Amino acid sequence: DSKLKIFSLNSNNPLAKEIADEMGLELGKSSVKHFSDGEVQISIEESIRGMDVFIVQSTSAPVNEHLMELLIMIDAVKRASARTVNVVMPYYGYARQDRKAKAREPITAKLVANLLETAGATRVIVLDLHAPQIQGFFDILIDHLVAVPLLAEHFGTKGFNEEELVIVSPDHGGVTRARKLAERLKAPIAIIDKRRPKPNVAEVMNIVGNVDGKICILIDDIIDTAGTITIGAEALIKSGAKEVYACCSHPVLSGPAIERIENSPIKELVVTNTIQLSEEKLSPKIQQLSVAKLMADAISRIYENKSVSTLFD
Amino acid sequence: DSKLKIFSLNSNNPLAKEIADEMGLELGKSSVKHFSDGEVQISIEESIRGMDVFIVQSTSAPVNEHLMELLIMIDAVKRASARTVNVVMPYYGYARQDRKAKAREPITAKLVANLLETAGATRVIVLDLHAPQIQGFFDILIDHLVAVPLLAEHFGTKGFNEEELVIVSPDHGGVTRARKLAERLKAPIAIIDKRRPKPNVAEVMNIVGNVDGKICILIDDIIDTAGTITIGAEALIKSGAKEVYACCSHPVLSGPAIERIENSPIKELVVTNTIQLSEEKLSPKIQQLSVAKLMADAISRIYENKSVSTLFD
Ligand SMILES: Nc1ncnc2c1ncn2[C@@H]1O[C@H](COP(=O)(O)O)[C@@H](O)[C@H]1O
Ligand SMILES: Nc1ncnc2c1ncn2[C@@H]1O[C@H](COP(=O)(O)O)[C@@H](O)[C@H]1O
Repeated sequence: DSKLKIFSLNSNNPLAKEIADEMGLELGKSSVKHFSDGEVQISIEESIRGMDVFIVQSTSAPVNEHLMELLIMIDAVKRASARTVNVVMPYYGYARQDRKAKAREPITAKLVANLLETAGATRVIVLDLHAPQIQGFFDILIDHLVAVPLLAEHFGTKGFNEEELVIVSPDHGGVTRARKLAERLKAPIAIIDKRRPKPNVAEVMNIVGNVDGKICILIDDIIDTAGTITIGAEALIKSGAKEVYACCSHPVLSGPAIERIENSPIKELVVTNTIQLSEEKLSPKIQQLSVAKLMADAISRIYENKSVSTLFD
Repeated sequence: DSKLKIFSLNSNNPLAKEIADEMGLELGKSSVKHFSDGEVQISIEESIRGMDVFIVQSTSAPVNEHLMELLIMIDAVKRASARTVNVVMPYYGYARQDRKAKAREPITAKLVANLLETAGATRVIVLDLHAPQIQGFFDILIDHLVAVPLLAEHFGTKGFNEEELVIVSPDHGGVTRARKLAERLKAPIAIIDKRRPKPNVAEVMNIVGNVDGKICILIDDIIDTAGTITIGAEALIKSGAKEVYACCSHPVLSGPAIERIENSPIKELVVTNTIQLSEEKLSPKIQQLSVAKLMADAISRIYENKSVSTLFD
């Protein structure tokens, strides 16, 4: 009799189901509804006494709704005498608010870490945090999985000529990420280095590295409004790139994102399923890879008290 | 130069403004917006270093949105070196989830208390908590104001004949509250005691006390879907009541509430402005009393380090 139980909340039920399927388990029975006034009403509908419980929830939009669902579920699981309360957050919302960029701003990514601990989480499993430093916001155990191997595997099947390939970071902050994909695909890197020559003058796209005649793969962690990635793709084409692909771990895709991607020179945008895409975001240009196996492996290894670090890179 | 600063969030800006007006202050300058993906973006736009800051926010619907706004604002205020971070919550959402009514339920009212403390609140000011025990969920200072004097004052101006008046609790859980209003209006009390004679048989309304030929005032803390109060009003009329009024502290008024109230024998529903009513809830039957002066007095007394207990009853 397994003492492992996986619960899904409402942000990404298909992924939670897929994780449970990978592990040959049924999802735990729970009810997550709303009272008439909109307050979250949760109840767990089977015993979890003494068990290792894993709650799968991405804090994607609507982020406050999904975060409160998660905090309330953690409270319910803790009070139902679970042995451990493990939070699987394929997408960690508010990660970009990870420092005071200006005076008198909050550091919401740290607040979220504190809220999860206060609610009763005993361990957190995340994937490609916007900044790896967010790991240090937690006093509880945190496992940080990465999607680069999945992305590399996907592009590896395309049979690109290695000589022609170049991995491009859309800004100077993402070079390390580009480097990791480049190593796996045995390709060089290039960097789009935006500079504003003077205040109130348009930014200039300076491309560091050779992209002329090349197949470029742009990589970022989050694609939100898709401004950076689509402007980057155009700059690459102007600099002589033959084809432009793009990829990211977390397809936030808010506001004008889909329109921008469809109107851009990007041939294919490869994303993962950490965030569930609504119908209207299912552009034919978007290819979604599943992190279910990766997550399932992490859960199994944690449950069996084995090292998860092999899944980090 | 005052070292007191009041900020408003988005749940009840008119009340916050009214509180500041009562105190002869301007509201603090802050910006509470959303990023494209829906994440809350807060920044405080004036120095609050060393100040006593009061943040006015009711966690009314959309509760998760308003609660997260509040937590993020507390974080921002704390990190901006405020001396104290005082949270003024005229309406405390999730208060009804204050115990495990069934196995494996959360106790969200306690979770909310912990979240407020974790974010950095140093003191909390609330009004008519669903259960006064929620005060004990906090390890920080909490001030619990009551609206009964306001309600009593309002009904006092109606010139009712004291002999004709009776204060009615719509259920056995609200008798203490009814008693408090009755004492102020020098009226007797009655109780609507619902009983289900057998499972799957309709409830029977048993009225304890004399309402025949009387002017009845029903009192509750929260009116949500208005089922209890409107069914109660009908039972009173059937038992010979001459007129039925109703009152509550917190007009949640979700779902069918307004329709039910308009179709009920209730002559007037008296509520406070702890929760801002949207246009479509402004029924001509509803009379809204302001708690601004009460809140302003509490804030002044706390700021001046005086006792707030005179405002409790
Ligand atoms: N949800 C969001 N959408 C857009 N920008 C954000 C969001 N959250 C935080 N930011 C801002 O993004 C910046 C951090 O982005 P980065 O420089 O890529 O780490 C900070 O200045 C934040 O104010
Ligand atoms: N937002 C809500 N709307 C309706 N019922 C609720 C809400 N929150 C909690 N409850 C339920 O209301 C009951 C508590 O109400 P009471 O008996 O009046 O204290 C509990 O059984 C809760 O499950």
